[in-house]
Amino acid sequence: MKPVCLVLGAGAGIGGTVATKFAQEGYHSCLCRRSDQDGLDRLVSNIEEKGGSASGYLMNAIEENVLEDLILNIEKDVGPIEVLVYNLGAQTGMKLLNETTLKEFEWGWRMADLGLFRVAKILMPIMEERGSGTFLVTSATAAMRGNKNQHSHAAAMGGRRMLCQTLNAEFAPKGIHVAHIVVDGMVDAPDTLGKMLGEELFKQLRETKGMEHDGLVLPESVAETYYYLSQQHRSAWSHEVDIRAFSDTAWWNS
Amino acid sequence: MKPVCLVLGAGAGIGGTVATKFAQEGYHSCLCRRSDQDGLDRLVSNIEEKGGSASGYLMNAIEENVLEDLILNIEKDVGPIEVLVYNLGAQTGMKLLNETTLKEFEWGWRMADLGLFRVAKILMPIMEERGSGTFLVTSATAAMRGNKNQHSHAAAMGGRRMLCQTLNAEFAPKGIHVAHIVVDGMVDAPDTLGKMLGEELFKQLRETKGMEHDGLVLPESVAETYYYLSQQHRSAWSHEVDIRAFSDTAWWNS
Amino acid sequence: MKPVCLVLGAGAGIGGTVATKFAQEGYHSCLCRRSDQDGLDRLVSNIEEKGGSASGYLMNAIEENVLEDLILNIEKDVGPIEVLVYNLGAQTGMKLLNETTLKEFEWGWRMADLGLFRVAKILMPIMEERGSGTFLVTSATAAMRGNKNQHSHAAAMGGRRMLCQTLNAEFAPKGIHVAHIVVDGMVDAPDTLGKMLGEELFKQLRETKGMEHDGLVLPESVAETYYYLSQQHRSAWSHEVDIRAFSDTAWWNS
Amino acid sequence: MKPVCLVLGAGAGIGGTVATKFAQEGYHSCLCRRSDQDGLDRLVSNIEEKGGSASGYLMNAIEENVLEDLILNIEKDVGPIEVLVYNLGAQTGMKLLNETTLKEFEWGWRMADLGLFRVAKILMPIMEERGSGTFLVTSATAAMRGNKNQHSHAAAMGGRRMLCQTLNAEFAPKGIHVAHIVVDGMVDAPDTLGKMLGEELFKQLRETKGMEHDGLVLPESVAETYYYLSQQHRSAWSHEVDIRAFSDTAWWNS
Repeated sequence: MKPVCLVLGAGAGIGGTVATKFAQEGYHSCLCRRSDQDGLDRLVSNIEEKGGSASGYLMNAIEENVLEDLILNIEKDVGPIEVLVYNLGAQTGMKLLNETTLKEFEWGWRMADLGLFRVAKILMPIMEERGSGTFLVTSATAAMRGNKNQHSHAAAMGGRRMLCQTLNAEFAPKGIHVAHIVVDGMVDAPDTLGKMLGEELFKQLRETKGMEHDGLVLPESVAETYYYLSQQHRSAWSHEVDIRAFSDTAWWNS
Repeated sequence: MKPVCLVLGAGAGIGGTVATKFAQEGYHSCLCRRSDQDGLDRLVSNIEEKGGSASGYLMNAIEENVLEDLILNIEKDVGPIEVLVYNLGAQTGMKLLNETTLKEFEWGWRMADLGLFRVAKILMPIMEERGSGTFLVTSATAAMRGNKNQHSHAAAMGGRRMLCQTLNAEFAPKGIHVAHIVVDGMVDAPDTLGKMLGEELFKQLRETKGMEHDGLVLPESVAETYYYLSQQHRSAWSHEVDIRAFSDTAWWNS
Repeated sequence: MKPVCLVLGAGAGIGGTVATKFAQEGYHSCLCRRSDQDGLDRLVSNIEEKGGSASGYLMNAIEENVLEDLILNIEKDVGPIEVLVYNLGAQTGMKLLNETTLKEFEWGWRMADLGLFRVAKILMPIMEERGSGTFLVTSATAAMRGNKNQHSHAAAMGGRRMLCQTLNAEFAPKGIHVAHIVVDGMVDAPDTLGKMLGEELFKQLRETKGMEHDGLVLPESVAETYYYLSQQHRSAWSHEVDIRAFSDTAWWNS
Repeated sequence: MKPVCLVLGAGAGIGGTVATKFAQEGYHSCLCRRSDQDGLDRLVSNIEEKGGSASGYLMNAIEENVLEDLILNIEKDVGPIEVLVYNLGAQTGMKLLNETTLKEFEWGWRMADLGLFRVAKILMPIMEERGSGTFLVTSATAAMRGNKNQHSHAAAMGGRRMLCQTLNAEFAPKGIHVAHIVVDGMVDAPDTLGKMLGEELFKQLRETKGMEHDGLVLPESVAETYYYLSQQHRSAWSHEVDIRAFSDTAWWNS
């Protein structure tokens, strides 16, 4: 039975690409996303065509018991979840305070924080019993500082960062590696950046900044770092790692 | 009509003492807390006996519309809220992951983040129209780093810190001073520390560390800093200020 | 005998203005600067005309034994130095790596770090014996993050920030208040910003951003915060405080 | 001609081990250290016995022109320095302020900051012309916060961190990857930890915390991360990475 890498938020960007990478390295990847059965099937097929092993799950992770059931079922039917990739985005767009609704604010928290807490509640005891496991949590610039049109996103990601620290503090000594990965820049991903910008603008950005310019963060490159983190020896774990395109300005610079 | 200082979370610690300070300095203080009508009445009486002006409100701030109605009513009936002190605590106690319930995790967020967001939604536009105002937000060590038994608290306060930054980024240029005040240590307050420790332990701690030793943070001293921040000239505002007893170790030291 | 406030780096900006504020509040201010005897005399005269007490010292602080002798002489002849304001700037201008010389890099360190270390070496034991004292250290955005044309300045100020933390960690429990004040923006000061920009540009900037716009940090406002910090009760000291004009972008925002 | 990995500070800990790793991966490793010709020869022999290629240099890096000449000579005689590992330690031991001399304070800065600046001055233009290169800078907890007995070390490493940021800000867009690696814990290294603790204590610590407990940071594990960082694709570079043993407390936790 292969070890399992469960990716929550497995779209055609970081999530799906990380799932593909772990499958290539010998894991069975479980891809979970909210919508687009076709896209999900394509990701699974691509993995299988390359000789990997994967399964797809279409579900709304933030609904009651969905995450809990998924994890227990995979543990029972598929294999031990050795790597958990928490990749649920919580971006509600660039909105000033009067444009941000209570509902958006709550949704951000459910995606960024409550979901991660629920996953930890159910999966940490299982990993603890095995004495090992890896939690890779995708995060964003907004976890490090709050810009004016990020009220929902920054509050959500600031909470996520602190939650990663509390989980690391409790569970690293028990053999579970928790990493908070700050993706500090635009990712070349049709499912997120593409949808936010619209097709035309996204195409243009890819041509001027992405592609051979390497100015957009490539999911394939990010996946390498995720995989690397999962393989670090426990005598030298990294907890917080930032990632950005070489030509981009770091969040702390102006 | 006096300018109003509205304190949300006005117990017998930082909140009530800050309200008292602002009343002494010429504001009408509105004290809002969830429980203990007697304690609330005592705070208001004490303020009035010293020649100040105050009113008390007993209510559960995180219930729907409570904060919104309170603010609108004060603006209509009492006076312009020039200073808002957001002092709702979100501490659920020292608990490991398996001791922390979903309900506690959600409650922490409601107190720390959603409440502040709701207050900002209703009050920022009013202050913006006046071109001035002050938001003083009490925060905690857990906003800066996450310890292992602080899953709910740290996620909540990490979100609060980022929300303060987004509010500051949008509203400081409009004349509204937002300050995130990191109280990094135990506060000599019967309503919070006293309840957490129990009467006997609290008494003992006051005798060995507090009182003439000044090793517990005194609400009266904190209130001086809150008042000072509200008076800073807009050419030199502080956004993040830490506070701790001289003999305490800063959160970043070991 | 009045308590002494010694200001190192007392030009016509933050330093001189802080010295003036402390003199107005009952301290004898000792103003120390490297050049411009006339400017120094003017500052002292202004203080005395307002009924304050002050003395001026023209010297190159980073020369061997200069700081040490100055402090010992003041302690012997003028009074106990209760407040030390370390305001020596270390800015060498906006320069890329190939424009920054070894000499500038070293000078930055001598001004920002070695000078502060030398002052602490000589003054901390004196304050420790008295069981009290205040160290107010002016710092800059470059202490928090390094921009591309700040190689010398950022290395210098990053060191200064950490040194303030080590001093605080050792001496706060002994009653000595150390504060690291991050002035995060341009200061309306002819001796520093004025010289960097040139007369014409400085005049223009004052008219469009400073003056009634309050968009440049006013030394008078900064001085209020320095004085406030010196008066904080030891049960609630602040160690790190940021200061910026309301209309400016915080260093962490973009 | 093999690409060169130059390691400054190549003792029997992180430095020598990183040099060995890069040699195994196809680089020619240049090992530079201040003392112990025998130790240096052993490191080079070990590399060669494993089929790698290396050369050793015994020199005092902080002497005038030593670093500059070394780099130019390697570029001329050995090959292009594609990877620079700046691993000069600046630890002067746990000393309170009155135990820390001016000389130690200056030495810390020379090792931590001036040396790195000098290397950057000479090597960055060379790398810039090639359009690529990697700067891996070993750093320490003291770069992130200052403890009471770290006056020299923290000031030095705080400067180093900011310098890494300024270098990254200027040179990342030119294709040069600068990484600041915070080794947040004790390293299982006889040349540094061993010397600091003494033979007996070091042996004891290895038995109770290190070895099969993996509670000391293993240089071999660190070397994996250094190598990984050098191979990251430029669309997804990491600038700041922390490293600690799984069972250790992160610097921000208490």
